[in-house]
Amino acid sequence: MKKFTSVHDVPDPKTLVQEAMSLKANPFVHDALGRHKTLVMLFFNPSLRTRLSTEKAALNLGMSVISMNATEGWQLEFQDHVVMNSDKAEHIREAAGVISQYADVIGVRTFSSLTDHERDYADFVLNRFIEFASVPVVSLESAIRHPLQSLADCVTIEEHKTKARPKVVLTWAPHPRALPQAVANSFIEWMKVMDVDLTVTHPPGYELSPLFAEGVPIEYDQRKAFEGVDFIYCKNWSAYAPYGQILNQDPDWMVTMDKMNLTDNGKFMHCLPVRRNVKVEDAVLNSPISLVLQQANNRTYAAQAVLRRMIGE
Amino acid sequence: MKKFTSVHDVPDPKTLVQEAMSLKANPFVHDALGRHKTLVMLFFNPSLRTRLSTEKAALNLGMSVISMNATEGWQLEFQDHVVMNSDKAEHIREAAGVISQYADVIGVRTFSSLTDHERDYADFVLNRFIEFASVPVVSLESAIRHPLQSLADCVTIEEHKTKARPKVVLTWAPHPRALPQAVANSFIEWMKVMDVDLTVTHPPGYELSPLFAEGVPIEYDQRKAFEGVDFIYCKNWSAYAPYGQILNQDPDWMVTMDKMNLTDNGKFMHCLPVRRNVKVEDAVLNSPISLVLQQANNRTYAAQAVLRRMIGE
Amino acid sequence: MKKFTSVHDVPDPKTLVQEAMSLKANPFVHDALGRHKTLVMLFFNPSLRTRLSTEKAALNLGMSVISMNATEGWQLEFQDHVVMNSDKAEHIREAAGVISQYADVIGVRTFSSLTDHERDYADFVLNRFIEFASVPVVSLESAIRHPLQSLADCVTIEEHKTKARPKVVLTWAPHPRALPQAVANSFIEWMKVMDVDLTVTHPPGYELSPLFAEGVPIEYDQRKAFEGVDFIYCKNWSAYAPYGQILNQDPDWMVTMDKMNLTDNGKFMHCLPVRRNVKVEDAVLNSPISLVLQQANNRTYAAQAVLRRMIGE
Repeated sequence: MKKFTSVHDVPDPKTLVQEAMSLKANPFVHDALGRHKTLVMLFFNPSLRTRLSTEKAALNLGMSVISMNATEGWQLEFQDHVVMNSDKAEHIREAAGVISQYADVIGVRTFSSLTDHERDYADFVLNRFIEFASVPVVSLESAIRHPLQSLADCVTIEEHKTKARPKVVLTWAPHPRALPQAVANSFIEWMKVMDVDLTVTHPPGYELSPLFAEGVPIEYDQRKAFEGVDFIYCKNWSAYAPYGQILNQDPDWMVTMDKMNLTDNGKFMHCLPVRRNVKVEDAVLNSPISLVLQQANNRTYAAQAVLRRMIGE
Repeated sequence: MKKFTSVHDVPDPKTLVQEAMSLKANPFVHDALGRHKTLVMLFFNPSLRTRLSTEKAALNLGMSVISMNATEGWQLEFQDHVVMNSDKAEHIREAAGVISQYADVIGVRTFSSLTDHERDYADFVLNRFIEFASVPVVSLESAIRHPLQSLADCVTIEEHKTKARPKVVLTWAPHPRALPQAVANSFIEWMKVMDVDLTVTHPPGYELSPLFAEGVPIEYDQRKAFEGVDFIYCKNWSAYAPYGQILNQDPDWMVTMDKMNLTDNGKFMHCLPVRRNVKVEDAVLNSPISLVLQQANNRTYAAQAVLRRMIGE
Repeated sequence: MKKFTSVHDVPDPKTLVQEAMSLKANPFVHDALGRHKTLVMLFFNPSLRTRLSTEKAALNLGMSVISMNATEGWQLEFQDHVVMNSDKAEHIREAAGVISQYADVIGVRTFSSLTDHERDYADFVLNRFIEFASVPVVSLESAIRHPLQSLADCVTIEEHKTKARPKVVLTWAPHPRALPQAVANSFIEWMKVMDVDLTVTHPPGYELSPLFAEGVPIEYDQRKAFEGVDFIYCKNWSAYAPYGQILNQDPDWMVTMDKMNLTDNGKFMHCLPVRRNVKVEDAVLNSPISLVLQQANNRTYAAQAVLRRMIGE
């Protein structure tokens, strides 16, 4: 696997889910595979879970890890043909080329501007890295997708489903800040290839990009959407159009135990961090129906399955 | 050992001191014990010695280490039942729960506010971590204690004592900034269980919390306190009441060679960093009576003894 | 080898170049040598290539690595006999002494003030570290030299030379900011001991310190300097006198393909990062005559050769 940026990079996503589950059962079975191999992770915005879980995944495989925060002191130029006489000291051509020589796999976390729609949805920064890297690149979240999170979510659903084809609802929830659409986009595209029935619920105006949402039923009545469902996946995102705007902070969209009771013993999922009593009330997170810690745990095995394919024979 | 936050977490402190000394003699004797085990260290304020020595200790045991500065970009909510709609993006329940899944041991460095006495002396941040962590937690200094430093200090005294029951003086010394009481508190509670005679000397007003200082003789005349003593432990702290205030910066309280000559060939100790010619004059630090580097070195074996107990069978 | 700060620390620089080339061919041949040994790297200014390549070098040798940014929160006092009552919390005597106890090798990156000529050219910070460290110290760039870069450059020239004694030109090129002379100084002193003919070309006023430049021909006509040359090494530096000043930003000094055509199939070298279309035009960097990625790659083996000598018997 030369890159892992979306479900489309994986010929057999269901097999990859099984591989992650198998690694969870036996995390150290490939602990010699990563000998003399190095994962370099570059964070263009801060990270807790992604850094720790991916580093743990690499260590489980016997790899060395070097993590760098590229948030300050390292301004990269991504455009070609520029006269570099301002604040950007290095071009992506050199940066990606150089790091490729020190790494066997490069992990890159980039982020959404929420202002430049075209650049974000071209996943410009991530794709420039891939263009000039000579080793496999794994997305640690990009402007529009968070594939390791989605893979971990698939594992979590697989572990907890009680039906061959569970019903899954992705519900928007309020948040005080404008957030990217990456997790929602990515969750949808992975759910589409899994054996689930997916519905999205959000206030009018929060329709996601057709690139992801096309073909997925929308139910604008959140309570109605929850009825008889097996998994509630909660996430906030800013509007796709007008791009990056907050249209609604209606607290009625918060997930409550009252609403969870509408489901068919449904489980609650969220990718963390989660703002308690804004997106979801304490009672849900503190109850056994919450799978948020399990999702975070599965991040390790999602990353490990991907890295294993990248450094495997 | 499920937690290491104070001397009260250790059933047999003297044995732990011996274990640290034994590890110092043979640092790599357990280098397979930490295989496939990870120490995650979280620093809520910056650290040099603690990070390096604890990381070294973990490496000596064959553990992997992931260090994170949590100083910026990661604001945690520690209170329950809060509507999290301000600057804090994650709750300690999720944070500690998640990190526990990536770590076999969690190290946490927190710090004193010096303004909120109640919160500090409840060791609120550290204790919330422990409450929600599912793996052992080692304090890398908390609001009111610095137990790895104290354990290293016990080792240093044990190595350098020339009498079965040496006399030890903890002396306050001036400092331009308001500092926590953590090192002083912690030193006292460890000395109380060691075979030493402890006296504290400080200007009036610098009495430490009765939680720690009760039963320890105070001598307000520093020169008199030094007479015939075997170990001088120098430290600044701000007042306990009024909490966190600087009451005195009298340069006459600086430790000098002249004062050290009042001791019985006494050794000088300080936990570092130390401000030269403010707390202690150059002549003392540059002479062989100073044990400050030995104390710093013993930090490694103190941490190693604690980690070994945490990951041991 | 107790220190690596300049070519003068190496009795046999040509042999060291050969050792680096040999390690490049077999990077893991000494992967047990670093067992139970730790490299601690301290960065007083940020670093990408140096951190990654040196960390990789240490990992190839089986060492553990601890990297610390000392850019904030750790103000060191380097002068003796100071009353430390201002912003500097720790003295270099303690800092270097303490770190020496946690490290088998210390790497230090310091930087030029470009204002205090005397302090910079005494390499004051680096030399104070060496004075008080009790383990070998490797310079990861200092105020006036960048020896690991120069060693990697020697390897690169050795790999790509087509003549027993190639002609090498160090050419100044414009840059929007005032940069140190370290790379240029260091390149010159390493070239002097290699089998090359070195000429320097720069605008009048950019003469380097006689400590380095003495005996090296200067050609003020850049095009004339390029004629018939085998390697063009491009670098900006600020003036040595008046110290640290920008005297010239003439874009005519940019390296172009047109100028490269004056050489004898000359290769282009630069230590990175490089500002495209300011110091050198895209066409040169994008062509196979550019060796900049190879230079960066050789940083790993340069560091590995030095570390191997430091930890080897």
